[in-house]
Amino acid sequence: MRGTMRETKRLTSAETAAWLLERDDFLILTHRRPDGDTLGSAAGLCNGLREVGKVAYLLENPETTARYQTYVQPYLAPVDFVPGAILAVDTADCQILQINAGSYAERVDLDIDHHASNTGYAAYSCLDPARGACGELVYKVLMELSGAVSAETATPLYVALATDTGCFVYANVTADTMGVASALIRAGATHWRVNKTLFRTKSRGRMALDGAMLSGLRFYHEGQVALVMVTLDLMARMGVTEDDLDDIATIPNQAEGVRVGIVVKELPEGGCKVSVRSAPGVDANGICRKFGGGGHPMAAGCVVDMLPEETAAVLVEAAGEALG
Amino acid sequence: MRGTMRETKRLTSAETAAWLLERDDFLILTHRRPDGDTLGSAAGLCNGLREVGKVAYLLENPETTARYQTYVQPYLAPVDFVPGAILAVDTADCQILQINAGSYAERVDLDIDHHASNTGYAAYSCLDPARGACGELVYKVLMELSGAVSAETATPLYVALATDTGCFVYANVTADTMGVASALIRAGATHWRVNKTLFRTKSRGRMALDGAMLSGLRFYHEGQVALVMVTLDLMARMGVTEDDLDDIATIPNQAEGVRVGIVVKELPEGGCKVSVRSAPGVDANGICRKFGGGGHPMAAGCVVDMLPEETAAVLVEAAGEALG
Repeated sequence: MRGTMRETKRLTSAETAAWLLERDDFLILTHRRPDGDTLGSAAGLCNGLREVGKVAYLLENPETTARYQTYVQPYLAPVDFVPGAILAVDTADCQILQINAGSYAERVDLDIDHHASNTGYAAYSCLDPARGACGELVYKVLMELSGAVSAETATPLYVALATDTGCFVYANVTADTMGVASALIRAGATHWRVNKTLFRTKSRGRMALDGAMLSGLRFYHEGQVALVMVTLDLMARMGVTEDDLDDIATIPNQAEGVRVGIVVKELPEGGCKVSVRSAPGVDANGICRKFGGGGHPMAAGCVVDMLPEETAAVLVEAAGEALG
Repeated sequence: MRGTMRETKRLTSAETAAWLLERDDFLILTHRRPDGDTLGSAAGLCNGLREVGKVAYLLENPETTARYQTYVQPYLAPVDFVPGAILAVDTADCQILQINAGSYAERVDLDIDHHASNTGYAAYSCLDPARGACGELVYKVLMELSGAVSAETATPLYVALATDTGCFVYANVTADTMGVASALIRAGATHWRVNKTLFRTKSRGRMALDGAMLSGLRFYHEGQVALVMVTLDLMARMGVTEDDLDDIATIPNQAEGVRVGIVVKELPEGGCKVSVRSAPGVDANGICRKFGGGGHPMAAGCVVDMLPEETAAVLVEAAGEALG
């Protein structure tokens, strides 16, 4: 509520660079369940600020998964750091800031973001919903700031672009996304290593889990709905943890002819987490709202307080109704 | 032999454009077992030539798989077409030109290619081994030719770039690759549709086969060697054909810690086709040469005249020796 009441001042990327130059001692926040875009944008911004002589740190995000640790490690704030300005990246609302943001969440000075749903929670906002990844916007700000990015800045920004676009395969990729990626590689981003690590390497457990998920794919409604079930028992048998489950929501939709893909994941605390991905024209958001969840038109989620098989049944029924 | 004896004249992309402008009635050849780079480059070049008023066609490649058919269909030569100049794209040697190239193979006037191993078989050659995809080079030539590419030209060229780089994930991606991709998207390439069709859609049979392959992945030599077996029986049970087997060679290497990935595919005529992919420093080419095959240092193949299990055993042994 508070965020929408305060007047947010929108800044262009050039104005954002000027704003940053006038201040110092930056603490950069990321969003909860952090992905490569928020963490890569934060690390790239932090290094870029340091290279123009600023003091800048990331507030350690306790939910950071192992795959991204190496990119943020050099930038974590010491416990006694007293920030002069609070920044947030890739975060549409202060309520989804990292779980340990505490009182910082209420006083974000500037956010840099690409979500159309941004609530205007920060005092200043550099927002461009046309950007495929927040990292593109951070690149643009840094170019305004110093006219160049170093290889050390380019690599985490490349991580931001690549992860938010599924390595340049999703429909959010624009000519600008590719243009920024080109500039980052030219600046020395180790894109081949990032790609191998993040997109071409799976744990043996995840390989086995993928095998089980693909073998166990179920089809409904003349093959237009596909469902994958990930039970606690299956995860235990395959030896996988939460860290191994990146991107599983996109699996069922890859089958030819599927218009609604559903992943039902059993939760340790009971109930199931459901992810729904849909083809254009089928409302994933609407399906999930029936169960108290929501999201985007083609990508949404919900938590259902039922056993896995029951959850699957009600979701398949709702998907059938959404197909019309 | 003949190709290396004839003096090949190397042309820059600007000289290539001038060369093309001076001639007419082009027939464009592609390589055997055609991939997206050769077919996309050919279709993009053909359309670009037509847009500057030339007559240009592709010689239909009988091995074109269903996934690429739509991109080449508008450009196929009528049977009575009499070419004024023979072009070849993405083809390192005349011996690997499309199986129906016939006498055209002996008289290629110009080739546009990015293989360092190009044998100089054509009278004129526009060659740049630094390019990730041949399509990049075709783009450069067309820009020299007319200063722009249309959306109709951009889409097949995007197919060329995307398929040769695994949708921008392989180590052959350069800043130029991304820069050309950016320009093609800006020109109107329907990249989102290409990506969905070529990289995010699998037949139900292929989904099931992937499930079986991943579930049946075998590890040897302390997990440094991974092997997948694709028997005729498995293919029949999963209901897949050769058309469904795109890119399976890269699967075993995705498991963490694997330095040699082997795919053994049983052949209908007896024996097995083997693909080997290796990490830097492990000689895939050397492994396959032991069985009369070969290829690149990190990607090679061979045909072994043994039963699948025997083939697996000798390959695993050879891989162990290569690990040293």
